[in-house]
Amino acid sequence: MSASLGELAVRFGCELRGDPDVRVDKVAALGNADGASLSFLASARYKAQLRETRAGAVVLDSASASESPVAALIVENPYATFARIAALLHPAPGGPAGVHPSAVVASDAVLDPSAHVGAGVVVGARTRVGARAYIGAGCVLEPDVVLDEDVRLIARVTIGRDVELGARTIVQAGAVIGADGFGFAPEGGTWVKVPQVGSVRIGADVEIGANTCIDRGAIGNTVIEDGVKLDNLIQIGHNVHIGAHTAIAACVGIAGSTTIGAHCQIGGGAGIGGHISIAAGSVITAWSMVITTIAERGVYSSGIPAEKASDWRRIVADLKLHGRKRSTDNH
Amino acid sequence: MSASLGELAVRFGCELRGDPDVRVDKVAALGNADGASLSFLASARYKAQLRETRAGAVVLDSASASESPVAALIVENPYATFARIAALLHPAPGGPAGVHPSAVVASDAVLDPSAHVGAGVVVGARTRVGARAYIGAGCVLEPDVVLDEDVRLIARVTIGRDVELGARTIVQAGAVIGADGFGFAPEGGTWVKVPQVGSVRIGADVEIGANTCIDRGAIGNTVIEDGVKLDNLIQIGHNVHIGAHTAIAACVGIAGSTTIGAHCQIGGGAGIGGHISIAAGSVITAWSMVITTIAERGVYSSGIPAEKASDWRRIVADLKLHGRKRSTDNH
Amino acid sequence: MSASLGELAVRFGCELRGDPDVRVDKVAALGNADGASLSFLASARYKAQLRETRAGAVVLDSASASESPVAALIVENPYATFARIAALLHPAPGGPAGVHPSAVVASDAVLDPSAHVGAGVVVGARTRVGARAYIGAGCVLEPDVVLDEDVRLIARVTIGRDVELGARTIVQAGAVIGADGFGFAPEGGTWVKVPQVGSVRIGADVEIGANTCIDRGAIGNTVIEDGVKLDNLIQIGHNVHIGAHTAIAACVGIAGSTTIGAHCQIGGGAGIGGHISIAAGSVITAWSMVITTIAERGVYSSGIPAEKASDWRRIVADLKLHGRKRSTDNH
Repeated sequence: MSASLGELAVRFGCELRGDPDVRVDKVAALGNADGASLSFLASARYKAQLRETRAGAVVLDSASASESPVAALIVENPYATFARIAALLHPAPGGPAGVHPSAVVASDAVLDPSAHVGAGVVVGARTRVGARAYIGAGCVLEPDVVLDEDVRLIARVTIGRDVELGARTIVQAGAVIGADGFGFAPEGGTWVKVPQVGSVRIGADVEIGANTCIDRGAIGNTVIEDGVKLDNLIQIGHNVHIGAHTAIAACVGIAGSTTIGAHCQIGGGAGIGGHISIAAGSVITAWSMVITTIAERGVYSSGIPAEKASDWRRIVADLKLHGRKRSTDNH
Repeated sequence: MSASLGELAVRFGCELRGDPDVRVDKVAALGNADGASLSFLASARYKAQLRETRAGAVVLDSASASESPVAALIVENPYATFARIAALLHPAPGGPAGVHPSAVVASDAVLDPSAHVGAGVVVGARTRVGARAYIGAGCVLEPDVVLDEDVRLIARVTIGRDVELGARTIVQAGAVIGADGFGFAPEGGTWVKVPQVGSVRIGADVEIGANTCIDRGAIGNTVIEDGVKLDNLIQIGHNVHIGAHTAIAACVGIAGSTTIGAHCQIGGGAGIGGHISIAAGSVITAWSMVITTIAERGVYSSGIPAEKASDWRRIVADLKLHGRKRSTDNH
Repeated sequence: MSASLGELAVRFGCELRGDPDVRVDKVAALGNADGASLSFLASARYKAQLRETRAGAVVLDSASASESPVAALIVENPYATFARIAALLHPAPGGPAGVHPSAVVASDAVLDPSAHVGAGVVVGARTRVGARAYIGAGCVLEPDVVLDEDVRLIARVTIGRDVELGARTIVQAGAVIGADGFGFAPEGGTWVKVPQVGSVRIGADVEIGANTCIDRGAIGNTVIEDGVKLDNLIQIGHNVHIGAHTAIAACVGIAGSTTIGAHCQIGGGAGIGGHISIAAGSVITAWSMVITTIAERGVYSSGIPAEKASDWRRIVADLKLHGRKRSTDNH
């Protein structure tokens, strides 16, 4: 869809410098934008591109506004405002209200008539689906699931029994929410499966990435609070609790019964051990390993940047040789 | 379902201290249990909770029995016994025998009449499904698959052609068993795909986690022996052989043609290189990297716990500086 | 199918030493081969097995030909030639041309009549599918997808809207191509979703592993060039660009907006940070972390091989103690 700059300025609380009747119908990067495109400047790094842009308008802050060669929508947080305008110009793909004839819906499931249930979807007994929810093709909802209003399951998502998702939560394709946690009791060299009788509670405005897994609790629930953002291929073990608005990048693993505070940021590939807690507001950099509780908010790391392999082999050899030697000397 | 303590004591070989007619119908943690709940104590760490519990009964060992304020089921391995009772009280969700009308089953597939084939399942030619098997919604079984009795595929599982699963094996949602291994022959800077003509043999009583991948062999089979437990998002390369009762936590990758002995434990996020072997009974701690054969059973590690990032940057800088310097001095 | 050695020699440009009328109908390892099997020798390591083999014929190079006790197909690159012959003897499983009655295909999708659309497949509006494409059971193609000729989607693959795949590209089960990238604008401690309006362009002859995820671009496309080979459970962030014929092993994560040159090899479990580039022809060894640009082609590492845990704990303690001490001394 398209919008005039005047409309956008009013709706998103921007100061407009330029012609309010100019219309934009899409977003684009500064360097590729044409006159019907809206772009943004969120970092001074891109000022050279700003000066060359052919966008119809640029969202930016007042400090940069004078350098825009085109119309400017001036606002304190240009990136967030750009995101909202982009959502207006590029609405998330939807589907017609109602149930596709190929879907299989239990007779006692309760679907809001405004919800979309796509082709090949399976909805279990007593599952409830809220207003305007979007359930894309091939999703499986086991019995007793609750999807609040405006939930979006993109495609081929599995939601286990009893799992609840809050309003506006988005789940990308292939994610599995509510599989059994990894619980086995050792007995004479073998393992006895411990039934996982808890479930998963996911708040509102959460995003869950493609092929990410969130296990159900062993006893009690795994909990993801409001506004948490999880990237792709993340593993969340049973009875983990993630505080509101924490963001976790791809390929992170979090072992069971760990509590992550609110407003944390965890970099890609990081590993978080089980039965620990991480203070609210902490940052774990990418590919770090955290296996003890972090009580004090801060930035934590243990990843090592790669070197030329020939140097690295010598560094590791030296590390091991001297580490052993000195620790022996100290004994 | 519910059971009396008397029945449980007889069935699971416990000594009962308390009223045999008390009934429990669910399991719960010590701190949340009510009078209809069964709880357990497997570690002295939780004795304070034991003393406060309101459970109907607690499974524990004889050393702790005197401290239970409620009925006690006394047994040598409380956690394993608790797991078995939990499975009785919370039976795994099943489905009716027979084939859902939306399933697509090849005419020459052989399904035991007691098996459940869920909505949207696809079963290929000549595939055989054993007694009481449960094939959840959206699973795809390619031709010539064999599922032994009581196998459970939770939902949206893919089983490649010729793959065989032993009795009682459970596969969580989204797992892919029998995709092509990663085999390519280099030729003039490009890659020629090597057909992966082997398959996968999975034993009895195996558990395979959500979105875990087990590749088919290049020539010959990938083998997972009886009782192996695999968590979510694990990668098992072609022609890997995993010995019986080995347990592997989430996010582990095992490269091709590696042999893991029986009764090993591999922590989350660990990486195991290709064409090596790991001695039976070994423990690899989380986020370690193993790229040479481990001939001697033991505990092995290479993960580094995270530090405050400011400290860690200095430690890494020093490691690299001195590692290079000393290794140069030694030349 | 079967072929005579004479036919194979002509078709694949080999010198034949042996009876041209001998027929083989499968491939096998040197040690397991019978008289109807073709085997190969690609490394001098296996010469002992060569001398004992009972294969019908062996593909090898001229330097080893004299040691074959059976018929020999002599060629410069035995492994690549073996791969091609294996593909002839073991053709990739196909399916009949046409659309399975259980598939749901948009009325304005354009399917080549020679394409196979399997059971339970969902094809969105305006999607185009080329000649001889194979779309296995349970795949979901969103609107405006383009699959070029001979593309193979094995099963339960999700292809997001507007994504294009080049000729002969193979996607293993469970892969998700074109999910939203991980883009959120911070605002007052919460996150505003940034619509991901780009797409994914995948070249010809690419292979994508099981449960691998390739995100769509934020603005502009994520690009995978011709001949790239991606193993299982890989994460490719938005706007990543991977050069032709690069091969990436399982469990690798590549953060957004990074450019990987052509002909690179990235080992399993490696992590590549965002907004960097890696020189063409580089090798990143397994479980390394790369977070700055690699401008010079080479081999790079930061993985540390595991030690006995008791030794490793002392090495780490020493690393941290001395790293802190020396870096303080240097201040």
